[in-house]
Amino acid sequence: MINGEKHTEAPIRWGMVGGGKGSQIGYIHRSAALRDNTFTLVAGALDIVPERGRSFGIELGIDPSRCYADYETMFAAEAQRADGIQAVSIATPNNTHFAIAKSALEHGLHVVCEKPLCFTVAEAKELEALAAAGKKVVGVTYGYAGHQLIEQAREMVARGDLGEIRLVNLQFAHGFHSAAVEEQNPATRWRVDPRFAGPSYVLGDVGTHPLYLSEVILPDLRIKRLMCARQSFVKSRAPLEDNAVTLMEYQGGAFGTVWSSCINAGSMHGQKVRIVGSKASLEWWDERPNQLSFEVQDEPARVIERGMGYLYPPALADDRIGAGHPEGLFEAWANLYYRFAMAMEASDRGDAARLAGIRYPDIRAGIEGVRWVENCVRSADLGGVWVDYV
Amino acid sequence: MINGEKHTEAPIRWGMVGGGKGSQIGYIHRSAALRDNTFTLVAGALDIVPERGRSFGIELGIDPSRCYADYETMFAAEAQRADGIQAVSIATPNNTHFAIAKSALEHGLHVVCEKPLCFTVAEAKELEALAAAGKKVVGVTYGYAGHQLIEQAREMVARGDLGEIRLVNLQFAHGFHSAAVEEQNPATRWRVDPRFAGPSYVLGDVGTHPLYLSEVILPDLRIKRLMCARQSFVKSRAPLEDNAVTLMEYQGGAFGTVWSSCINAGSMHGQKVRIVGSKASLEWWDERPNQLSFEVQDEPARVIERGMGYLYPPALADDRIGAGHPEGLFEAWANLYYRFAMAMEASDRGDAARLAGIRYPDIRAGIEGVRWVENCVRSADLGGVWVDYV
Amino acid sequence: MINGEKHTEAPIRWGMVGGGKGSQIGYIHRSAALRDNTFTLVAGALDIVPERGRSFGIELGIDPSRCYADYETMFAAEAQRADGIQAVSIATPNNTHFAIAKSALEHGLHVVCEKPLCFTVAEAKELEALAAAGKKVVGVTYGYAGHQLIEQAREMVARGDLGEIRLVNLQFAHGFHSAAVEEQNPATRWRVDPRFAGPSYVLGDVGTHPLYLSEVILPDLRIKRLMCARQSFVKSRAPLEDNAVTLMEYQGGAFGTVWSSCINAGSMHGQKVRIVGSKASLEWWDERPNQLSFEVQDEPARVIERGMGYLYPPALADDRIGAGHPEGLFEAWANLYYRFAMAMEASDRGDAARLAGIRYPDIRAGIEGVRWVENCVRSADLGGVWVDYV
Amino acid sequence: MINGEKHTEAPIRWGMVGGGKGSQIGYIHRSAALRDNTFTLVAGALDIVPERGRSFGIELGIDPSRCYADYETMFAAEAQRADGIQAVSIATPNNTHFAIAKSALEHGLHVVCEKPLCFTVAEAKELEALAAAGKKVVGVTYGYAGHQLIEQAREMVARGDLGEIRLVNLQFAHGFHSAAVEEQNPATRWRVDPRFAGPSYVLGDVGTHPLYLSEVILPDLRIKRLMCARQSFVKSRAPLEDNAVTLMEYQGGAFGTVWSSCINAGSMHGQKVRIVGSKASLEWWDERPNQLSFEVQDEPARVIERGMGYLYPPALADDRIGAGHPEGLFEAWANLYYRFAMAMEASDRGDAARLAGIRYPDIRAGIEGVRWVENCVRSADLGGVWVDYV
Ligand SMILES: NC(=O)c1ccc[n+]([C@@H]2O[C@H](COP(=O)([O-])OP(=O)(O)OC[C@H]3O[C@@H](n4cnc5c(N)ncnc54)[C@H](O)[C@@H]3O)[C@@H](O)[C@H]2O)c1
Ligand SMILES: NC(=O)c1ccc[n+]([C@@H]2O[C@H](COP(=O)([O-])OP(=O)(O)OC[C@H]3O[C@@H](n4cnc5c(N)ncnc54)[C@H](O)[C@@H]3O)[C@@H](O)[C@H]2O)c1
Ligand SMILES: NC(=O)c1ccc[n+]([C@@H]2O[C@H](COP(=O)([O-])OP(=O)(O)OC[C@H]3O[C@@H](n4cnc5c(N)ncnc54)[C@H](O)[C@@H]3O)[C@@H](O)[C@H]2O)c1
Ligand SMILES: NC(=O)c1ccc[n+]([C@@H]2O[C@H](COP(=O)([O-])OP(=O)(O)OC[C@H]3O[C@@H](n4cnc5c(N)ncnc54)[C@H](O)[C@@H]3O)[C@@H](O)[C@H]2O)c1
Repeated sequence: MINGEKHTEAPIRWGMVGGGKGSQIGYIHRSAALRDNTFTLVAGALDIVPERGRSFGIELGIDPSRCYADYETMFAAEAQRADGIQAVSIATPNNTHFAIAKSALEHGLHVVCEKPLCFTVAEAKELEALAAAGKKVVGVTYGYAGHQLIEQAREMVARGDLGEIRLVNLQFAHGFHSAAVEEQNPATRWRVDPRFAGPSYVLGDVGTHPLYLSEVILPDLRIKRLMCARQSFVKSRAPLEDNAVTLMEYQGGAFGTVWSSCINAGSMHGQKVRIVGSKASLEWWDERPNQLSFEVQDEPARVIERGMGYLYPPALADDRIGAGHPEGLFEAWANLYYRFAMAMEASDRGDAARLAGIRYPDIRAGIEGVRWVENCVRSADLGGVWVDYV
Repeated sequence: MINGEKHTEAPIRWGMVGGGKGSQIGYIHRSAALRDNTFTLVAGALDIVPERGRSFGIELGIDPSRCYADYETMFAAEAQRADGIQAVSIATPNNTHFAIAKSALEHGLHVVCEKPLCFTVAEAKELEALAAAGKKVVGVTYGYAGHQLIEQAREMVARGDLGEIRLVNLQFAHGFHSAAVEEQNPATRWRVDPRFAGPSYVLGDVGTHPLYLSEVILPDLRIKRLMCARQSFVKSRAPLEDNAVTLMEYQGGAFGTVWSSCINAGSMHGQKVRIVGSKASLEWWDERPNQLSFEVQDEPARVIERGMGYLYPPALADDRIGAGHPEGLFEAWANLYYRFAMAMEASDRGDAARLAGIRYPDIRAGIEGVRWVENCVRSADLGGVWVDYV
Repeated sequence: MINGEKHTEAPIRWGMVGGGKGSQIGYIHRSAALRDNTFTLVAGALDIVPERGRSFGIELGIDPSRCYADYETMFAAEAQRADGIQAVSIATPNNTHFAIAKSALEHGLHVVCEKPLCFTVAEAKELEALAAAGKKVVGVTYGYAGHQLIEQAREMVARGDLGEIRLVNLQFAHGFHSAAVEEQNPATRWRVDPRFAGPSYVLGDVGTHPLYLSEVILPDLRIKRLMCARQSFVKSRAPLEDNAVTLMEYQGGAFGTVWSSCINAGSMHGQKVRIVGSKASLEWWDERPNQLSFEVQDEPARVIERGMGYLYPPALADDRIGAGHPEGLFEAWANLYYRFAMAMEASDRGDAARLAGIRYPDIRAGIEGVRWVENCVRSADLGGVWVDYV
Repeated sequence: MINGEKHTEAPIRWGMVGGGKGSQIGYIHRSAALRDNTFTLVAGALDIVPERGRSFGIELGIDPSRCYADYETMFAAEAQRADGIQAVSIATPNNTHFAIAKSALEHGLHVVCEKPLCFTVAEAKELEALAAAGKKVVGVTYGYAGHQLIEQAREMVARGDLGEIRLVNLQFAHGFHSAAVEEQNPATRWRVDPRFAGPSYVLGDVGTHPLYLSEVILPDLRIKRLMCARQSFVKSRAPLEDNAVTLMEYQGGAFGTVWSSCINAGSMHGQKVRIVGSKASLEWWDERPNQLSFEVQDEPARVIERGMGYLYPPALADDRIGAGHPEGLFEAWANLYYRFAMAMEASDRGDAARLAGIRYPDIRAGIEGVRWVENCVRSADLGGVWVDYV
């Protein structure tokens, strides 16, 4: 039960890079971080346009002297202060993540970074080494992974409720970019430009979300090889894809599919995860996140509801309000930020055991997302052939 | 678009009565009030057990010297401080609401009070008079009324999208108290005891929620007469009911029904609102709150989604995150608290025009809830006869 | 398992009154009766316009000499033939049912009659006496009662899966007559004219359907008293109602509601049955008839699927195609006609034991529908007061 | 509007091979063929065990002298009779289809054959040539293709309601064979044995169903190349697969996927078709067949209901009962058999124009199903590589 009690000695002093006024994802970072008294927002380099960033920072209640023109200035200045930031969140376009995260780690900060963490596994490993050296936490915001019913799904698989895992069917297939909206919309424009978005569009932008959910629910699965076909239905997006299908063979014989799309016309998110086992299946849909379908072969399908006393204990621990009341994306994110804080504190205290017990999308999650995109792109660019997963 | 920017000069200094550790509803008050930089929690009399309240207050980050043993002490002490609280929320069992709210108003505080506001219309009118005299805001937490799609529904009715209104079908019918859980659960125990709960159980506890939604969506409807049948399926709950059906005739000919229940076994909330017009119907269900069914006769039914650009402007104004992402009860509450803050500020500035433009569950909503319960109970106690609505 | 095998020595020789070309319900009678080799259509007085009826009869493959101008002629002529009809179905407007059924019974025929069986309980009792005297079967076509999952529901209640029954929530509330479509549509016109429709419109036309489902599922419940409010939202329909709500107290303390409507704009059928017990609830919806929701308090809700091996044996007996494949209204009707045939044959053989074991909507179902409408209308006409159920 | 009127001069004299007592699919053939007065069952070789077939034939009302021991005898004997059968349906295990269909065509019969039509395209072409030479109709029972809303979908695509077609997502993925049920169940046993089932299990058994739906809805699409991965999760089923994923590139750039499975634990059918266009998407699910989801980007999703007056005329033509009432698999099949009859009659009359206007799963549908399986198997056996579609 989460009820607003302080769980950290003091809230972690926190800054943001990006997430400026009108940005898509900035508000949910702040909303999640500030939800449970674990972080306090004290500094920011919130916008590519310094003045806009500064005035927005002031509106957010940041001390004007700590509204910085850019992240380098912020990291340098804050490092001088006794009360300087301890952690930073990065909510800028993809191409900047690596440099900002690297600089943050070099300045001794814990980092929460938007996905994709960076563009290549090599870069990701570099960040991993820096984090390990500095004993810093790196969290990646695969926000849906914080939902109570994802924890329930993970526990059900662990207890064998599904039997042996056979199929992993993943999709995040929305329709918002069915037309070339990037012509009008700047937040879409950078997404379809490889200089800003990296080597893929929908694979990295949406496909990695359910991929990470599958990593959470099925921690023991390892991809052996995969093949990917990608298309650019809006021609001007090429070489970046607006639709992709990935097939995956796992070690041990399970089989997976991922449908990543932004041209699934009329669909809202379409983020769905279906895990098929030898005895039963699980299905979760982010648009009706308070229900988890549990389908045992030869029995009536069951609808598992968030918040109910029959959930497994790790799922119940995240509860904020009784069953029946819907929780949404904000609670999922808040649960993650809560864990980021717990991890940062444990790390600062050098409490490795505690740290190991906290499940959150960490640097490995970041690496795996980048790795998966790299493998998908390699397969797709070879014409959709099977490639060993490296 | 709500994004965490400060919208008040400074956050309103705020205290709580009740909502202590383990209480059902305390956390969502805090979560909602603190969501948008509009309130800051600085004092509390959080628990019937002073010591428990004090230690919880400290955990919440309240200055120990402002963790009070009871509300009288708090109101008196805070009134002495230059930085004393400006507003208080009351989240205690029903029987205490009137006295606490009255005292708060007498101490010059804005009040957010849990429903039911009090036990009788006479009491409610007394609070109304006090609030008017002191120019204070009284908000009542019918939380679902803050959901974006309720605003959309209201606007659709106003624009005539449904034609002339004919039927209002309301229900809040959960199953959590199918058995006599009060024998174990103290938070249920007071609800079935008239000394604490007042003249009704489910009518006041759950039925008033969709009733208020109907008041928001259909501001012009007036009940002419009603009849109510109530039952106590768990016998020991008599005279309080655990199930009730109310029929309502509105002025102008529309007809309404309300099903209030806590013995609807296996149902989660079952809070549903269906408005039937001469051309089309609307239906909303709090457990899938991001979808609004809009059913025009002789056309395919439409599913209206929260956050989409095609919503009417007053609905879009409440948006916090793009369409597709689910918002839940917390955002609905946060939207209300945001409006409470706007109203308090407008009131303090004496800006009557601005105040009149803010739609929130105010003292009249509180009065109407109490009035409706009073009328229902009168009808039920007469054997389920029609009574004029007074 | 029903598979087309002959289950009667020879198909029953069968005629129809009404159900002519373009009629709403004629085809489903023929489709159901002829589905399982139990009836053969050999005569008809199919239309109020003799010539139209005759030519349609010929199109249906009836011998021209047995296409009659009216039912009296048909009953008289057929009674003269060694191979004359043994049974007749009546699918004419309501006002004619009594006279036709009476005449059919007097001519020694088994009768399948559309609902409502007649206009008054007195008439219904007269038919009952005639049927008893002649040892004839009278079936009434509450078609949905033949669905496999209704049998399952009945058995679940009988076995105590729901605990003690508390609430019976019934509705059949469509929107097809939201506007005054009777101005164009003759099949609606007679429905809103008391001379043809009888004392009610929607109560009798749609409300009796879920009422009968409740009688099937809950054979032990007895209405003690009821109250009914009815409205004519399309004014020209008065005194007949286009919307009605009925509340019912059952002997033993259960409580029921019925919503009957044809002005529920945008709704398709809206025929739903929810039975709430002390342990669990059941819910069935005729528009998704292959699923039955079974909701045990404090457990995940279950979706029971038609055709699955876990159904109770009486439900499985009606199976025609494996689970997964949807069955619809036609199978429900065919199941009823199958039982009508079994009952007629058992009756003809004088096999009272077998006859008693066949569950179908019989003359008592017909009487109860008429009785319920009579009581509802009485209450409504007294201003919506409680009346003892007589 | 279909209402039981005779639409053929006289019912077509019809026989069956297979579909014996206890078989899965025999009843629905009879039920569909006999539904509309277009066929009359006069002969049969219903079972691999002659005596069982004979006694079942008698139970079905077939003249004992026309209950044959095997199909050769039947075809030979019937050919001698003036009133011999004109058409035959084949509902036996897959391995026998080719020989029986060939013999039937050689005996001058119209043929309705279960899918798969045969095992190789070469065989299928042989049947095609025979049918063309004899001017005979060959129908293949992809039963769901007869549903009213499939016709609606086809018309919507034709009119451009979806824009340019981009994605075709198909699945038929049930869970009934999650365990090795073939050890007990003979009807499953032959399905996993290549001698009886042919070169594939689920690809042919279930995958071809939605494939044919896509051919109906999207008559202009042509597969250019495909790749297929198949698995045998129940090991003993190898080399036959119990799960398969097929990816398809169409000429013109559209992309398709097919998920075929019998180990999708807990799923009923899971037959779903989603067509994504540049403007909108369509989705249909065979378990809720009376609703078609129509999702225009940037508009509320619409639920199109079977039977409503707003359907396009070709869809309305198939109507049997008003909107709201659910139709299921039986009506879909009956619609097909109705068209088979129309086609046979047009063919017999030599009315080529009429014949060309009747849309039904014909010999080309049979060929395409076999071709698709052949290509899938070829790709899968090469390790899941892309193969040109031949
Ligand atoms: N986790 C999720 O669910 C999720 C959802 C949406 C976006 N994202 C990710 O979040 C990131 C941001 O996406 P968005 O949609 O909010 O983008 P956006 O274009 O809406 O906003 C980007 C913000 O970053 C600012 N910015 C750009 N460069 C900057 C720099 N060098 N320094 C400081 N500020 C800078 C811009 O001014 C803007 O305020 C992307 O990496 C995206 O992939 C994640
Ligand atoms: N708006 C909603 O959706 C909603 C939902 C649940 C409850 N409620 C209402 O909220 C109120 C509280 O309900 P709950 O379920 O949280 O009750 P609860 O029994 O769970 O908690 C009540 C809290 O109030 C404290 N308290 C009691 N008397 C007090 C006093 N005199 N001074 C200070 N603290 C005191 C208790 O110690 C406890 O912490 C009720 O009026 C109820 O109707 C509203
Ligand atoms: N059980 C159900 O689900 C259901 C559904 C629809 C209608 N109904 C009932 O079926 C009956 C018929 O309804 P409908 O909607 O088909 O009506 P309709 O008006 O569409 O058809 C009535 C038919 O009866 C014929 N007819 C009228 N008077 C006749 C007479 N004296 N002799 C012979 N034929 C005569 C008409 O020519 C017409 O063919 C009504 O009682 C109605 O309540 C039942
Ligand atoms: N279209 C569909 O939706 C659908 C659904 C199920 C099955 N099928 C197809 O229908 C066919 C039959 O499948 P089923 O599940 O009913 O099989 P089944 O094993 O249940 O029944 C097969 C029947 O054929 C009889 N039979 C076998 N060999 C025969 C022969 N040589 N001569 C005469 N009778 C013979 C058997 O005695 C039995 O009655 C298969 O090809 C299958 O693929 C199609």
